Amino acid sequence: MMLLLGLAGVAHGGGRRRLVVSSNENEPCRRMTVYYHDILYSGNNTANATSAAVTRPAAALSTSRWANGTYFGLLVVFDDLVTEEQALASEPVARAQGFYFYDRKEALNAWMAFSLVFDSAAYRGTLNLMGADLMAEETRDLSVVGGTGDFFMSRGVATLSTKAIEGAVYFRLKMDIKLYECYV
Amino acid sequence: MMLLLGLAGVAHGGGRRRLVVSSNENEPCRRMTVYYHDILYSGNNTANATSAAVTRPAAALSTSRWANGTYFGLLVVFDDLVTEEQALASEPVARAQGFYFYDRKEALNAWMAFSLVFDSAAYRGTLNLMGADLMAEETRDLSVVGGTGDFFMSRGVATLSTKAIEGAVYFRLKMDIKLYECYV
Amino acid sequence: MMLLLGLAGVAHGGGRRRLVVSSNENEPCRRMTVYYHDILYSGNNTANATSAAVTRPAAALSTSRWANGTYFGLLVVFDDLVTEEQALASEPVARAQGFYFYDRKEALNAWMAFSLVFDSAAYRGTLNLMGADLMAEETRDLSVVGGTGDFFMSRGVATLSTKAIEGAVYFRLKMDIKLYECYV
Repeated sequence: MMLLLGLAGVAHGGGRRRLVVSSNENEPCRRMTVYYHDILYSGNNTANATSAAVTRPAAALSTSRWANGTYFGLLVVFDDLVTEEQALASEPVARAQGFYFYDRKEALNAWMAFSLVFDSAAYRGTLNLMGADLMAEETRDLSVVGGTGDFFMSRGVATLSTKAIEGAVYFRLKMDIKLYECYV
Repeated sequence: MMLLLGLAGVAHGGGRRRLVVSSNENEPCRRMTVYYHDILYSGNNTANATSAAVTRPAAALSTSRWANGTYFGLLVVFDDLVTEEQALASEPVARAQGFYFYDRKEALNAWMAFSLVFDSAAYRGTLNLMGADLMAEETRDLSVVGGTGDFFMSRGVATLSTKAIEGAVYFRLKMDIKLYECYV
Repeated sequence: MMLLLGLAGVAHGGGRRRLVVSSNENEPCRRMTVYYHDILYSGNNTANATSAAVTRPAAALSTSRWANGTYFGLLVVFDDLVTEEQALASEPVARAQGFYFYDRKEALNAWMAFSLVFDSAAYRGTLNLMGADLMAEETRDLSVVGGTGDFFMSRGVATLSTKAIEGAVYFRLKMDIKLYECYV
């Protein structure tokens, strides 16, 4: 069940857009599942890499204990591939552009902010997300805080889950994106 | 005075959530005051530290004038304790996970973005915040741009004030969080 | 055409604020055009600089190919001047405080988050923005995800276009800010 706010009008083109607010957490006004692939630059992995560490925890912190396998202080910027299916080779649907960093000394834990940039036959526009990536949880929620183009002014929640990790070089996240405020 | 949008329905569990919009700046739909403790890693302070500088202004900038006491260019990532009362030893209510950096050459001034991560009997979920930390002002406002879990889709304003500074090692902020859009 | 939500009430001071939602993409509830000036610190340019690189791609990445003119991995923090007209010397209207970084190996492409901090006779408060700065596009949209003070709880879209580039030292962006959710 949705609630329409605003006056009826021609969609798009004419410029009219009505705010739709979902009144049920299980019925977003828009939903999509995509897969995010992070391929981190490392000495042996230049060609396909789409992200790079720009800080070095070891250099910033004076004891190795701090960087002890939790990457604490490592900040990575990325322009990563986002696909429709799990496989890296499946249909690309967007790029994810942004950054993440590891923020905990004792355990793997991260925080991230990024834009999903869509530029395809299906969608053109961006969704902007931010939030804690609580890596110890099987699923964790980020906020979708805004959108542009086909996602004009959208808000919602993105549920992340880790689907693959290959050392420090590659990981894959499933992103279940649910929008609860849409302008249509 | 609040305005309910959406259809009446059973709260939670059933999935129904109604958007509540405050119509008065003095009457948020939800309010809480918490205290944020930042304990920065330094040579003598490894054990309790919950944050770490990941850039070094002095290294990035070629004249010492730039780093002249204003930490210009210093970026810190943190997983900090948030308590119910001022004392560091008081009841923990959340973790604050995110980053801040100093962005002005001539004076102390910062910018920050972070998640308040609640995981207690009282609350489970996150609030996501960002904004300028205008350190010269006694109070300054950040935006609460989204939320998840018990804070599903929340928006509001968080008013910060500095309550303690101990050199470069510790500072405490009071955070008065006022939500004006709630889904309940 | 606007839709007023909430009860009528005295504006400001009294604390009452009504949410106004635009129902037409061409009719924001508030609009302004401003110019952002980024003057980056470099060896010869200390005095006027308002931003500084805090990471060095060349140091973080082991091959020069990565930093090959696209600044991939460079992160800049800023407290930049924002003016009413194009000229750097025109009337200041705000400061832009935040950061940007370059996130693509093969081409110039950036991501940014910042606050517009207004403190003048006309406006007092902040707008918080984030999003992909798709530098290859003539215009690109960021999200306005929140606001404080005179911009209490605002949301919208900011359309950027590059108006000048002077090497690695200076660039100017036109920011056309359109708010579609206002509390008035």
